[in-house]
Amino acid sequence: MLTGYTIAILGGDARQLEVIRRLSEWDANLFLIGFDQLDHGFTGAKQVEMDEVEPSVLDAVILPVPGANAEGDVDTIFSNKLIRLTKEWIEKTPEHCLFFTGITNQFLIDVTTETKRKLVPLFDRDDVAIYNSVPTVEGTIMMAIQHTDFTIHSSKVVVLGLGRVGMSVARTFASLGANVKVGARKTEDLARAFEMGLETFSIHDLKDHSHDCEIVINTIPAQVVTASVIQNMPNRTLIIDLASKPGGTDFRYAEKRGIKALLAPGLPGIVAPKTAGNILANVITQILLEHLGEGSNA
Amino acid sequence: MLTGYTIAILGGDARQLEVIRRLSEWDANLFLIGFDQLDHGFTGAKQVEMDEVEPSVLDAVILPVPGANAEGDVDTIFSNKLIRLTKEWIEKTPEHCLFFTGITNQFLIDVTTETKRKLVPLFDRDDVAIYNSVPTVEGTIMMAIQHTDFTIHSSKVVVLGLGRVGMSVARTFASLGANVKVGARKTEDLARAFEMGLETFSIHDLKDHSHDCEIVINTIPAQVVTASVIQNMPNRTLIIDLASKPGGTDFRYAEKRGIKALLAPGLPGIVAPKTAGNILANVITQILLEHLGEGSNA
Amino acid sequence: MLTGYTIAILGGDARQLEVIRRLSEWDANLFLIGFDQLDHGFTGAKQVEMDEVEPSVLDAVILPVPGANAEGDVDTIFSNKLIRLTKEWIEKTPEHCLFFTGITNQFLIDVTTETKRKLVPLFDRDDVAIYNSVPTVEGTIMMAIQHTDFTIHSSKVVVLGLGRVGMSVARTFASLGANVKVGARKTEDLARAFEMGLETFSIHDLKDHSHDCEIVINTIPAQVVTASVIQNMPNRTLIIDLASKPGGTDFRYAEKRGIKALLAPGLPGIVAPKTAGNILANVITQILLEHLGEGSNA
Amino acid sequence: MLTGYTIAILGGDARQLEVIRRLSEWDANLFLIGFDQLDHGFTGAKQVEMDEVEPSVLDAVILPVPGANAEGDVDTIFSNKLIRLTKEWIEKTPEHCLFFTGITNQFLIDVTTETKRKLVPLFDRDDVAIYNSVPTVEGTIMMAIQHTDFTIHSSKVVVLGLGRVGMSVARTFASLGANVKVGARKTEDLARAFEMGLETFSIHDLKDHSHDCEIVINTIPAQVVTASVIQNMPNRTLIIDLASKPGGTDFRYAEKRGIKALLAPGLPGIVAPKTAGNILANVITQILLEHLGEGSNA
Ligand SMILES: NC(=O)c1ccc[n+]([C@@H]2O[C@H](COP(=O)([O-])OP(=O)(O)OC[C@H]3O[C@@H](n4cnc5c(N)ncnc54)[C@H](OP(=O)(O)O)[C@@H]3O)[C@@H](O)[C@H]2O)c1
Ligand SMILES: NC(=O)c1ccc[n+]([C@@H]2O[C@H](COP(=O)([O-])OP(=O)(O)OC[C@H]3O[C@@H](n4cnc5c(N)ncnc54)[C@H](OP(=O)(O)O)[C@@H]3O)[C@@H](O)[C@H]2O)c1
Ligand SMILES: NC(=O)c1ccc[n+]([C@@H]2O[C@H](COP(=O)([O-])OP(=O)(O)OC[C@H]3O[C@@H](n4cnc5c(N)ncnc54)[C@H](OP(=O)(O)O)[C@@H]3O)[C@@H](O)[C@H]2O)c1
Ligand SMILES: NC(=O)c1ccc[n+]([C@@H]2O[C@H](COP(=O)([O-])OP(=O)(O)OC[C@H]3O[C@@H](n4cnc5c(N)ncnc54)[C@H](OP(=O)(O)O)[C@@H]3O)[C@@H](O)[C@H]2O)c1
Repeated sequence: MLTGYTIAILGGDARQLEVIRRLSEWDANLFLIGFDQLDHGFTGAKQVEMDEVEPSVLDAVILPVPGANAEGDVDTIFSNKLIRLTKEWIEKTPEHCLFFTGITNQFLIDVTTETKRKLVPLFDRDDVAIYNSVPTVEGTIMMAIQHTDFTIHSSKVVVLGLGRVGMSVARTFASLGANVKVGARKTEDLARAFEMGLETFSIHDLKDHSHDCEIVINTIPAQVVTASVIQNMPNRTLIIDLASKPGGTDFRYAEKRGIKALLAPGLPGIVAPKTAGNILANVITQILLEHLGEGSNA
Repeated sequence: MLTGYTIAILGGDARQLEVIRRLSEWDANLFLIGFDQLDHGFTGAKQVEMDEVEPSVLDAVILPVPGANAEGDVDTIFSNKLIRLTKEWIEKTPEHCLFFTGITNQFLIDVTTETKRKLVPLFDRDDVAIYNSVPTVEGTIMMAIQHTDFTIHSSKVVVLGLGRVGMSVARTFASLGANVKVGARKTEDLARAFEMGLETFSIHDLKDHSHDCEIVINTIPAQVVTASVIQNMPNRTLIIDLASKPGGTDFRYAEKRGIKALLAPGLPGIVAPKTAGNILANVITQILLEHLGEGSNA
Repeated sequence: MLTGYTIAILGGDARQLEVIRRLSEWDANLFLIGFDQLDHGFTGAKQVEMDEVEPSVLDAVILPVPGANAEGDVDTIFSNKLIRLTKEWIEKTPEHCLFFTGITNQFLIDVTTETKRKLVPLFDRDDVAIYNSVPTVEGTIMMAIQHTDFTIHSSKVVVLGLGRVGMSVARTFASLGANVKVGARKTEDLARAFEMGLETFSIHDLKDHSHDCEIVINTIPAQVVTASVIQNMPNRTLIIDLASKPGGTDFRYAEKRGIKALLAPGLPGIVAPKTAGNILANVITQILLEHLGEGSNA
Repeated sequence: MLTGYTIAILGGDARQLEVIRRLSEWDANLFLIGFDQLDHGFTGAKQVEMDEVEPSVLDAVILPVPGANAEGDVDTIFSNKLIRLTKEWIEKTPEHCLFFTGITNQFLIDVTTETKRKLVPLFDRDDVAIYNSVPTVEGTIMMAIQHTDFTIHSSKVVVLGLGRVGMSVARTFASLGANVKVGARKTEDLARAFEMGLETFSIHDLKDHSHDCEIVINTIPAQVVTASVIQNMPNRTLIIDLASKPGGTDFRYAEKRGIKALLAPGLPGIVAPKTAGNILANVITQILLEHLGEGSNA
């Protein structure tokens, strides 16, 4: 249990509600900042403004998935008021206070380094990335179904990258009956794909494989789906690019060539906010429990 | 090859285009009726009006998936003109002329029985039903993703019926990582579901299982998802009813109870018209080849 | 519960012990005939000789999987004494007395028909055949591993028949990473195999597919793996014939041609007697419960 | 092609024959040492004694899977003669000469370091370990079938470790219908197992999970299956320990407790020598091709 623990939740979207729900169930003391338009109440949670919270009582501060912008502003869909995180405010928290964010940026790194507070960028964790790969895959499936006039079953799918997302994508599309080919650069990734029953090729040979595919799903955050790769594709090929912006596709050329190419960021929050929120809630709770006792206001 | 074979295609939707494409590839002689707004041309195919065709030259007539209505009217999305099939017209076809339809009805049965023409209702065939179950499942997946805020993976899914569609649904949702429970009435269906690694229950006990499910997918064309079944469901449960109209769900009660219940007919034509058209094209071609020589104008 | 129910168990092997264990747990009154070398005791079970039992008190008689031979002799591995079932003995049982056997034969049919007793040949039931397909498949896997020097993964496997056993075989070998091709005669079986992600061919074209396979698993109880089929096979091909004796393979020709061909009957009792016994115990218990009340000594 | 390349093959077992076959197909020049009892001939391969080979002509030397012992002796099943590798002999090879071995040891490391020759311990490579995991899994399946009286399907299987072997074991047993629980220490391994649809637990909690399992498969090369873990196991539990000698199981205690525990080393060479040999042949060929031109006698 998190009894006696005091946590500030700063803004967010539907995912943050799962975090709040969980922490409330675990009996934490919560300050919700940026939720004034939320009509739902949570036991042990108080809706407050940023300046109504006394930072010195906080054991943890939870930012939303996108973290903060370069000025420290935090987004929320449940309020119109500005939430801004400042170095001064952070300095007033106790030294043991943990700062959680989904994605990190230079501002958050700087401000926590300077104040010697521990920053936990959740999306950098391998486990979070793998758990999140599950809703990401389902979003990809939905897009593949919506944007083609043929079934995934029996279609020719090329998956680029066999990292945390790529492995989930490859496995799931294969289990839907697609003929999946995986392009990767590490020989052990090709070995793993083989063991999973998939066809494989070295990513360096991608352009020799693009003439014969109906769906390309890219998870590599580098320019791999280049013009010369796209050139060989059949007209009906669909490219779904999951890599973080700007993706790994030459979108300009794809458009010129008449190939449908979709950049699809943030799928977990779109197709399964509840699951995505639970993933965060699980990890945050677990980290809090591990740190508990190491020094807290509890 | 279907060289020398003459076939009339009467109306339809995107699926019919696949049939036309295939028959054209196989070198059949085609009359397209109800396609005047189609700008695409097919080799060996002539766009005509109903009364421009001489029925006596036809070896086969292909109606669209929904067949005809009680008056013999045939739907088409490629024309505004009326297409009507009459007993008189059918009588003028040669005796060996085959009549294909997706779904049949009393009108078609009567008119072909009276004229002693062979009617082939494609959707009555087990193989067509099984091939069609593939796009049906993908449509169901799309709906499950769109209408929930959690992932299919790890969710509790109840599948009702283990017939041609039910088996595909159960297998595929399980392969997506759902915890699938199958409700069926035949002991051999329960045995098969067990062998597939699924949990099972007798459909008669459905109401003992509905308190613990997140998605219910019904394939049974009978009132099985009754008020007493729905009553036990958690609020967030989603019902997707695939059974042909009126489905197997007490939709009125579901609405009253605040449970989202969706009747989802015609998924193959919606999510994968190309695949759905190819399924028909395959079977039609195969049947035509088998009948060829048994008497034809070729 | 089966309290008050009196049942005679006549001989058998390890599988029968599971049946005894289950019925004992369900509180039935048991007479064990042909178990004098069994040192293990079961609550409520009495070890007796055939002539020590008073048939008129029996509600059910359970024969072992192979039933009886043409003279009515029943096999047992737990005794050296002869157990013989006779018409006279059967006539002394009450009319409602059920006779269970695994496999039936003319003797059992005649003797129960003449005495108007109900005979339940368990292996004729679809559910039992499907449950049994699971240990059958595992036995087949074991043989395939033992009798080849390559992995099942990535090997080319042809499965003949998509019945109760064939479907389980095909699915499981595919899930082990084999490239499975299914040969069947019904178009709906080919459709189902396609939906399962397998390759298919019409069984009539078998000899066009045998040149390129490494393992052939036959489940069809008819001569399908003929000399002309075997002729085309590579030398290293392994044939595992699961069909009941004499199998569906031309074993003489296979041997001549130097192709390893194994007839593999009775796998469930060999590789998983406990599971195989439980399958019988489940069905027998369920049938007894359904008949209970319809008239019994209880 | 490996035309002009000269390679010595030193001893080995059936796996080495696949390596020879492949290199012969790729047109290499081969000296076979320790194969005098082999009756089969290979194009371009000469059977010789160790002292008949002129080391200076060699581009590569291929040791068998177990490498050499502490004195440099190399095992072979195709000869009774001693094969001994010495520093002096190695020094006479050209500097670019590659030394392949399956497993390495101090002798091989020392002797190649001192002579500045490149040693390639194939089994240290991730790709080889993953490819080898496939026959390892099949050997494990065979053992599980042979040493239990129940089916893998529906059984409770605990897999320890989710490394290169563990992941393949877990996936495959699950696909056979087992209820697989994975115990691992990294949170990302638990996340991956979850994504694969498996249950998970922290390896530290192993003893809380051992009371409820029927098969334990260990892949962790550390003492994890301790007495206190074994103590909780049901009597019928089977332990298959895949970790390299001495395994990760307290075998002494298992025996005392009456639990069947099997150490199962070297499965690929036992159950699928051809596949295991091909894995080596693939990697050796690929490495040779990459080094070709970097300096060779070719
Ligand atoms: N769209 C969404 O909703 C969504 C959701 C989650 C994640 N993502 C994004 O998806 C991408 C993949 O995420 P992840 O968690 O799977 O990352 P990851 O585990 O790091 O995997 C990235 C993969 O790309 C490969 N790769 C990287 N650079 C490469 C290059 N230059 N050439 C060839 N291969 C290269 C990596 O191979 P090596 O191992 O050889 O480096 C690895 O296989 C990221 O951009 C992430 O932000 C998007
Ligand atoms: N939504 C779509 O896009 C779409 C697409 C394809 C099909 N469909 C519809 O889906 C339904 C199922 O099609 P199908 O091809 O799977 O049919 P099917 O093979 O006949 O399967 C029907 C299943 O329902 C069971 N069933 C029928 N009546 C029952 C009752 N009174 N109680 C319990 N179980 C009962 C059957 O069990 P028994 O074997 O014991 O009779 C069987 O398992 C049909 O209505 C079909 O029109 C819809
Ligand atoms: N070795 C063992 O341990 C073991 C264990 C269990 C069963 N068995 C044996 O395995 C065999 C299969 O059992 P099952 O339960 O799967 O039976 P099943 O459900 O009746 O399946 C038999 C299959 O064979 C096909 N078939 C029958 N005659 C054919 C013919 N002349 N040409 C083409 N296909 C034909 C059937 O196709 P249609 O549907 O088109 O007729 C069906 O696909 C039986 O002989 C059974 O005794 C052996
Ligand atoms: N029997 C056979 O035929 C056969 C065939 C192939 C391999 N093997 C043997 O199988 C074993 C596994 O091989 P592999 O290729 O899978 O190795 P691997 O990829 O290194 O995997 C080893 C696994 O053990 C875990 N582990 C190691 N030390 C641990 C500890 N103290 N506590 C908890 N977990 C620990 C690792 O977790 P971390 O990632 O957290 O370290 C990893 O999950 C090796 O001993 C290998 O020699 C046997």
